[in-house]
Amino acid sequence: MEPIFSTTITKIKGSQKFEREDTLVREIKLELIVNGEKVGAVMATPVDQEALAIGYLMSENIIERFSDVTSLKLLNDGMRVEIEAKVNQKNIKKLNAEGVVISGCGKSMTANIDPEAIEAKVIKSDFSISAALLSKEMGQFYTECPLYEQTGCVHTAKLFTDAHTYFIGEDIAQHNTIDKVVGKAQMAGIDVTNSFLMVSGRLSSEMVAKAVMHQIPILASRTASTCLGLMIAEKFGLTLAGFVRGDTMNVYRHPRRIHV
Amino acid sequence: MEPIFSTTITKIKGSQKFEREDTLVREIKLELIVNGEKVGAVMATPVDQEALAIGYLMSENIIERFSDVTSLKLLNDGMRVEIEAKVNQKNIKKLNAEGVVISGCGKSMTANIDPEAIEAKVIKSDFSISAALLSKEMGQFYTECPLYEQTGCVHTAKLFTDAHTYFIGEDIAQHNTIDKVVGKAQMAGIDVTNSFLMVSGRLSSEMVAKAVMHQIPILASRTASTCLGLMIAEKFGLTLAGFVRGDTMNVYRHPRRIHV
Repeated sequence: MEPIFSTTITKIKGSQKFEREDTLVREIKLELIVNGEKVGAVMATPVDQEALAIGYLMSENIIERFSDVTSLKLLNDGMRVEIEAKVNQKNIKKLNAEGVVISGCGKSMTANIDPEAIEAKVIKSDFSISAALLSKEMGQFYTECPLYEQTGCVHTAKLFTDAHTYFIGEDIAQHNTIDKVVGKAQMAGIDVTNSFLMVSGRLSSEMVAKAVMHQIPILASRTASTCLGLMIAEKFGLTLAGFVRGDTMNVYRHPRRIHV
Repeated sequence: MEPIFSTTITKIKGSQKFEREDTLVREIKLELIVNGEKVGAVMATPVDQEALAIGYLMSENIIERFSDVTSLKLLNDGMRVEIEAKVNQKNIKKLNAEGVVISGCGKSMTANIDPEAIEAKVIKSDFSISAALLSKEMGQFYTECPLYEQTGCVHTAKLFTDAHTYFIGEDIAQHNTIDKVVGKAQMAGIDVTNSFLMVSGRLSSEMVAKAVMHQIPILASRTASTCLGLMIAEKFGLTLAGFVRGDTMNVYRHPRRIHV
């Protein structure tokens, strides 16, 4: 299935009303089947579905590493991913359970971080980048983002794993963009624990928790963090930056990884 | 609990790094208790929680009308709403079930629209507005939106129920903004079936389905619809407009309710 769809719509301009063709982004329900069992379904844009599935299952600690995957198939016109892999069965059960409350702003966390596991998830990487590099990359953020160019209706993530390598994830759902870029990196055999991640949208708790679950040390956006996003970054040692515009930015927590 | 939170962050400007105060929007887990039973929890910004609860429960067909509510309390520092009401117990059970697939772009719909009920949910209202009014209101969309002004990190919905009355909903989660404005209107005893709704963000299937579930005839945004949003609007008779900017707009489906 193509990720975009063309249809006739009605354009209004001043007192004129006329028909014209328009291009919209698709939104599907992607089913995830692991070892023959349906573990869930996510609303997603049908591009890079395999990477999304791998990134999602790794973020939820269901799959530990890509080499544990023995089979990966995209079926049903792109609406179903079937995976055979060594999995953590206990975390599949936790997927639809409720998360853990972090004090400070209220609840957060997706399903599989329990309080005892927080210490194990604290990001200890010494990786750092210059503020100038972050500013430069934000200035050309939408380079090579075809769905954004065609529809103006997707979120984007870019994961920079070294000076010459980055991965792009585009999706109508913001959290999927992170799973897509991480899934792509993992499928390419590239470690993400010394990388930086840039996203197009707001740094809500869900986005910040995703970065933590993938152990990415730096997360940046052109726009703001929520209070809970900041609290999670504080607790898990994530460098979190917002409002990266021109040569300025707000580093909410752990600024040591961004040097001037 | 205040919806905003002040904290010290690190600002970088060029080669300077310094501390300053910043204001962030809060994000909490709001628990919903209906007749003593916990029916769910939503991540939300702690403002207008009662309206959010009412709007949400009405959108899911758990409460039919506000007059069925006999008690409504905000507790636990604003993180819990307790409601006593006449409810549809069957739809509480459906809340966490999976939705229905609409052909065309893939899945959609939140839990409580089943295929047999689609016909009953088709919007038949003859309500209409001028394109000029929609353009004018979009031009002043952020008037009276305090959280947006303070944090730049919330979505906004505005529901216009007559020429002199509108309701504002602000929340970190876009779908909550619709439930907040509808909840406010319902709590004020105002019918929403001859109104128009404007939102700040993308018209994903979830947003479009919310408008349908509340039987609001016109939904407009400054930005784009997804393909599935358009398909739901088509099927349920909703007038859906995107890219409302200056004196132009894209009316995706059912343009009869917007006259030039």
